[in-house]
Amino acid sequence: MTDVALIEQLKALVEPGKVLTDADSLNAYGKDWTKHFAPAPLAIVFPKTIEQVQAIVRWANEQKVALVPSGGRTGLSAAAVAANGEVVVAFDYMNQVLSFNEFDRTAVCQPGVVTKQLQLFAEEKGLYYPVDFASAGSSQIGGNIGTNAGGIKVIRYGMTRNWVAGLKVVTGKGDLLELNKDLIKNATGYDLRQLFIGAEGTLGFVVEATMRLDRAPQNLTAMVLGAADFDSIMPVLHAFQNKLDLTAFEFFSDKALAKIMGRGDVPAPFETECPFYALLEFEATTEEVAEAALATFEQCVEQGWVLDGVMSQSEQQLQNLWKLREYISETISHWTPYKNDISVTVANVPAFLHDIDAIVGEHYPDFEIVWFGHIGDGNLHLNILKPENLSKDEFFAKCATVNKWVFEIVQKYNGSISAEHGVGMTKRDYLTYSRSEAEIAYMKAIKAAFDPNGIMNPGKIFAL
Amino acid sequence: MTDVALIEQLKALVEPGKVLTDADSLNAYGKDWTKHFAPAPLAIVFPKTIEQVQAIVRWANEQKVALVPSGGRTGLSAAAVAANGEVVVAFDYMNQVLSFNEFDRTAVCQPGVVTKQLQLFAEEKGLYYPVDFASAGSSQIGGNIGTNAGGIKVIRYGMTRNWVAGLKVVTGKGDLLELNKDLIKNATGYDLRQLFIGAEGTLGFVVEATMRLDRAPQNLTAMVLGAADFDSIMPVLHAFQNKLDLTAFEFFSDKALAKIMGRGDVPAPFETECPFYALLEFEATTEEVAEAALATFEQCVEQGWVLDGVMSQSEQQLQNLWKLREYISETISHWTPYKNDISVTVANVPAFLHDIDAIVGEHYPDFEIVWFGHIGDGNLHLNILKPENLSKDEFFAKCATVNKWVFEIVQKYNGSISAEHGVGMTKRDYLTYSRSEAEIAYMKAIKAAFDPNGIMNPGKIFAL
Repeated sequence: MTDVALIEQLKALVEPGKVLTDADSLNAYGKDWTKHFAPAPLAIVFPKTIEQVQAIVRWANEQKVALVPSGGRTGLSAAAVAANGEVVVAFDYMNQVLSFNEFDRTAVCQPGVVTKQLQLFAEEKGLYYPVDFASAGSSQIGGNIGTNAGGIKVIRYGMTRNWVAGLKVVTGKGDLLELNKDLIKNATGYDLRQLFIGAEGTLGFVVEATMRLDRAPQNLTAMVLGAADFDSIMPVLHAFQNKLDLTAFEFFSDKALAKIMGRGDVPAPFETECPFYALLEFEATTEEVAEAALATFEQCVEQGWVLDGVMSQSEQQLQNLWKLREYISETISHWTPYKNDISVTVANVPAFLHDIDAIVGEHYPDFEIVWFGHIGDGNLHLNILKPENLSKDEFFAKCATVNKWVFEIVQKYNGSISAEHGVGMTKRDYLTYSRSEAEIAYMKAIKAAFDPNGIMNPGKIFAL
Repeated sequence: MTDVALIEQLKALVEPGKVLTDADSLNAYGKDWTKHFAPAPLAIVFPKTIEQVQAIVRWANEQKVALVPSGGRTGLSAAAVAANGEVVVAFDYMNQVLSFNEFDRTAVCQPGVVTKQLQLFAEEKGLYYPVDFASAGSSQIGGNIGTNAGGIKVIRYGMTRNWVAGLKVVTGKGDLLELNKDLIKNATGYDLRQLFIGAEGTLGFVVEATMRLDRAPQNLTAMVLGAADFDSIMPVLHAFQNKLDLTAFEFFSDKALAKIMGRGDVPAPFETECPFYALLEFEATTEEVAEAALATFEQCVEQGWVLDGVMSQSEQQLQNLWKLREYISETISHWTPYKNDISVTVANVPAFLHDIDAIVGEHYPDFEIVWFGHIGDGNLHLNILKPENLSKDEFFAKCATVNKWVFEIVQKYNGSISAEHGVGMTKRDYLTYSRSEAEIAYMKAIKAAFDPNGIMNPGKIFAL
């Protein structure tokens, strides 16, 4: 069938005007925040109902057309890229919070609900949606579920997985499944809901999600501590975790701080210069909690782990301290960084970081490494800035070598080649560094059970 | 091959003396706490290493011998029953906590570690393993994972699923998989770990589990409140959840309390007689928290929801209040109860309970219904006591009709036919009341991928 005929068929499945094929739309909806693949979708379709999604999937099976899910397209693994004539299924018109259950503290969301929209909805109800990250203003719940999004509060609240009470999905075969029905306890066989979380749209589409909400945190208070060296950050984490329920424990290096200071719009935390900084946060529900935090800080200074520190005394100070961490990614984007998002167990973090510093420093002494990340979760964001004298092509050619070293070190420490960004297309060729061949074979068997014709986001996680 | 020859082959796979075929062993290891099926295993085998488990699974595939996993055999769904000449694989000799990681707060457990053993191990480290239930003294971690065990602290800590950082499993095909490698963040495709949690041993054996531990709770304090009627318990739950982080919210009826009082060894909570009681627990970390609890109690009294109440002032009082709830199951076992373990969303609990009361009361007015359970999780334990004038056979024949009504009402409220006890053999014929035919077909496809010869605990979850 010709492309024109396919598009005519597709138009018959949705409301008038809900299939786009103009160049701007193809370009915009055919890619995420990665830039390695040129978008080339056949069309963009905007379903408004679950029935329309089912009709699209059934049609795609008949015509053997590949489908790519599109949420906020803020992904960093090219999982939402359509580079091979796929039909992009965009959930922009399925973007409502459909209902709220006050006793279960749940909200039923269409997949196109924006993360921030759910956060604000929860706030209106006096509650809290705790999954939060830089792209919360444009990422969508469907996409968050597809990548099991993490972010800056995982140490306390866990990943998106923890907040999904129930899912409605349309599988690659076109079946509508109601998974877990929003129950807390449900011991009736395999929890298929869990398979769709983090599946990057390769098994089917999330068409409705019941998300749990939590009580709102009280009097969030942050500390920024300057550490004597990286290894000192670990006992500091340990000391604070033994005293407080932390809501965050982030870190960044002096090089990251220098870039933030260079902006001129964020106040320095304190004057003492340190090689590494920790940002931790907790609920100062009572005076005693704040006192326990200060006592732990003093203990860390006495041990020589911490050289200086500051604790927020107001909402404004809290926000300013968070800017030191949250502005890093945007600020360093000016230097065309090589980026990698990796994880190991918390105990393995120092050795892992030293190994990578050593091998990169040995081979490329002119490379500036900027470390930051969610150290309380073992999740490090490695960033290497392009030296001015190197062209982009030269730099990324050298980074391809770095990539291999990084993944070999990930494998050595039994870590993950993708902590929270997913596999998509950017990491699929490296999957064996984290998952065994046997595991991958079982994953492919599961994929075949839900999507026998291979129409659901083909080429993502696994090669075509 | 003859049974004798099979047993000889099996003996060659493990250490001397680690295959038992005497009648006492077959009888003891061939069943769990259910009594509907007569145990009839071929033999009991006790592997001591992962390699031995793999050898047993490979041999079972070659000889087409069915395998049944055996943990503490405290299950209530006959998932660990061997009634058809299976080989029982018992993990009694793989019962060590192998290592502890203080920075990740994890303990690597062999599958035969008893729940209580892990709880005590955590305590020694100044930490806490929060999954707790009546059979913690004999249930094993492998079995807890197989049923995704819940218990009395789920409202705060979730099910066993939340505490599994990593799993080593031997699949039905004999592959050893290392799932998730104890990472907090790992976005590398389908999380196969989740499939094995709650799979009741139908996909493979859990041969090692890394369990997360939490900080120890501080100054646990319980309240028992007498409610004016069942519907009043819901706003009470709501009021307390808005003020406190509850570690438990349980309920029981006046009939349950009467049975406990009849024992003579548990003090009454207070004199006022109420139709229903709530037991809630929280960490009274500061004076303010206890004051907030008392203020909320007073507010509930003013609203007419609560008629009387008591708050524990000591560890002894805390334990005495918990006995009111924890002794129920054992106490009523004297009356040969029909039992059912079901769940709905929290908001649906009152209507669900009224519907069941109404239909049972209408048809069997002489049946005494004893309700208790984990109401904060929507999980109700329905118990009907056998009237003295009915024989066991007559009673259970009538209860078969009750069963059908209960599951129809579960379906009406979109609930679960098994909240935490699993499907096993006792509920497999009712699975369609909670899971659609399409879902069950996908489950069977997954089963076929991991266990193509159907040797892993056949007849559990699904009919043979």
